[in-house]
Amino acid sequence: MRATLMYSAGDVRIENVPDARLIEPTDALVKVTRAAICGSDLWPYNAMEHDETGRGMGHEAIGVVEAIGADVRTMNVGDVVVMPFAYSDGSCAFWPRGAPHFVRPGGFFGTGMSDVGGAQAEAVRVPQADGTLVVLPVGEDDALMPSLLTLSDVMGTGHHAAVAANVGPGKTVAVVGDGAVGLCAVIAARRLGAEQIIILGRHADRIALAREFDATDVVSERGEEAVERVRELTGSFGVHSVLECVGHGQSTETAISIARPGGAVGRVGVPQEESIPASQPAFFNNVTVSGGPAPVRAYIEELLPDVLEGRIEPGRVFDRVVGLDGVPDGYRAMNERKAIKVMVQP
Amino acid sequence: MRATLMYSAGDVRIENVPDARLIEPTDALVKVTRAAICGSDLWPYNAMEHDETGRGMGHEAIGVVEAIGADVRTMNVGDVVVMPFAYSDGSCAFWPRGAPHFVRPGGFFGTGMSDVGGAQAEAVRVPQADGTLVVLPVGEDDALMPSLLTLSDVMGTGHHAAVAANVGPGKTVAVVGDGAVGLCAVIAARRLGAEQIIILGRHADRIALAREFDATDVVSERGEEAVERVRELTGSFGVHSVLECVGHGQSTETAISIARPGGAVGRVGVPQEESIPASQPAFFNNVTVSGGPAPVRAYIEELLPDVLEGRIEPGRVFDRVVGLDGVPDGYRAMNERKAIKVMVQP
Repeated sequence: MRATLMYSAGDVRIENVPDARLIEPTDALVKVTRAAICGSDLWPYNAMEHDETGRGMGHEAIGVVEAIGADVRTMNVGDVVVMPFAYSDGSCAFWPRGAPHFVRPGGFFGTGMSDVGGAQAEAVRVPQADGTLVVLPVGEDDALMPSLLTLSDVMGTGHHAAVAANVGPGKTVAVVGDGAVGLCAVIAARRLGAEQIIILGRHADRIALAREFDATDVVSERGEEAVERVRELTGSFGVHSVLECVGHGQSTETAISIARPGGAVGRVGVPQEESIPASQPAFFNNVTVSGGPAPVRAYIEELLPDVLEGRIEPGRVFDRVVGLDGVPDGYRAMNERKAIKVMVQP
Repeated sequence: MRATLMYSAGDVRIENVPDARLIEPTDALVKVTRAAICGSDLWPYNAMEHDETGRGMGHEAIGVVEAIGADVRTMNVGDVVVMPFAYSDGSCAFWPRGAPHFVRPGGFFGTGMSDVGGAQAEAVRVPQADGTLVVLPVGEDDALMPSLLTLSDVMGTGHHAAVAANVGPGKTVAVVGDGAVGLCAVIAARRLGAEQIIILGRHADRIALAREFDATDVVSERGEEAVERVRELTGSFGVHSVLECVGHGQSTETAISIARPGGAVGRVGVPQEESIPASQPAFFNNVTVSGGPAPVRAYIEELLPDVLEGRIEPGRVFDRVVGLDGVPDGYRAMNERKAIKVMVQP
């Protein structure tokens, strides 16, 4: 089958690889009908050291079940399923917030750290299928596919930022970052009842979409100037909830600095530094820093009805569609900020 | 009047200073009947650079109101009052957790950063008296004085660590640090229903007291070994709630590392570093880092009945009592870990 392999920074190729197949009795084999390129794929795209064997890329997918292992109970061949970016054993909840047992996922797709391949491919082996996949009540070419695909990662991740930052009715919110996750975070903040939603970003096309998703204010400054602008927009207080959707040291420091005393930062941008800056402002302002990889699987149940009934349209973050051959160009376009998010139809 | 002044690291003197007096119409003048030396007083005791004029020390006190300004409404001359370590305008709540308006305190006692003196003195001027002081329903030499005095800081601070770390019934808790705040954090965790309370510390006298306060386990190792021990004690998971009562980089890193995935760290030790270490473990484990200066004033209402009715005895952290002349020795004893916490009777 054909699959996307990354060999080093900037070097993405579509190659023939051995067909994905069932290995464990808890596996499902999924024919990928939609996949995506993620902002987090751009980290290795910019920094990966050379890897002889190549790394199978992609962790967001919708597809059709082609085969199931002997122990799989919750799906049948032919079902349309959405695949969260992490796989996990169904025996323990992934992350109901505040619940006593938040168990780490079994692993992540498309990281090259396991024998599980990537989803930017014709097919993918899904371990722990019952705990991982969710069957969708739609056909494989449903018009809602783009929005359903965001339940693999970016919409659940934006929602996680909002949950971790305690967004609720009447709250003031800032979203740091105007990538696909930041845009989904705007949707999530609005969905949870935020009153004011300030987006920090500087790309005209993304900001325009954020406005359509109901962002109320835009701050295009950075660093100290951004902090000043957010204070001006919030009666000098700062916001109740900051959704950090970038992961850089500077963006994290800005996020902490624009939270009001007693506020919270929900981090979902994969941190690129070993420490969280601004310890003392966080401490003296009693700012809570929360977040991490989103428990996307657990959130699908909550978000799916809103997608199916058209109340949210996170699929609008996709502004380019490519076949597998177009994947290398898709990486380039996202890296050069010429596309917000690229959908792949293998 | 006589007061405690610190001139540089290790140089604490009792001197005659101008009498404390009313300045603003919202002030109260309080004759100090009990004060205390705090673990946070040991930071300048070990690191302060020379200050010509000296810094008035002390931020914990109980006393008798000697005079009130024209605008003070909630107390009368002769009332016995407890003084939180921060003063604040009563017009805005200090920190009801999760409330929309958490306003910073007007300032702190005994920091040398304002014209408000310290409480290790014969008297102290209390700004914003209505918002700051709480009248106690006891006489000035009540047997409960030591426990009531902890409501100035250490008991409220230990409680804040527990609240910030989401301690609740059935939870597993670790307390990092066996100073007076750590010991009060043990009381707070038990009071909020924690099932298992692991204290990380290595001073025999403090650990013995922690046991009396219902700590269930003791970890005397540090760093990686401490992390291993806590994992062993918690079925390899780590704890739900970590109460960080030290403030060092290493203790903070340990705190984050012993939280289970989805758990929380409540920081009340004043951070000695500019950043929070262990960003990535915190992120990948979805560990929440919260906390800061405790809203002690707001907590007094909740904690006072338990002190008055003897359900908690935080005053047991005081293991030495001195007059003003004994204050320099008190600093020395606490710094050498020969006393847990020193009470001052001016």
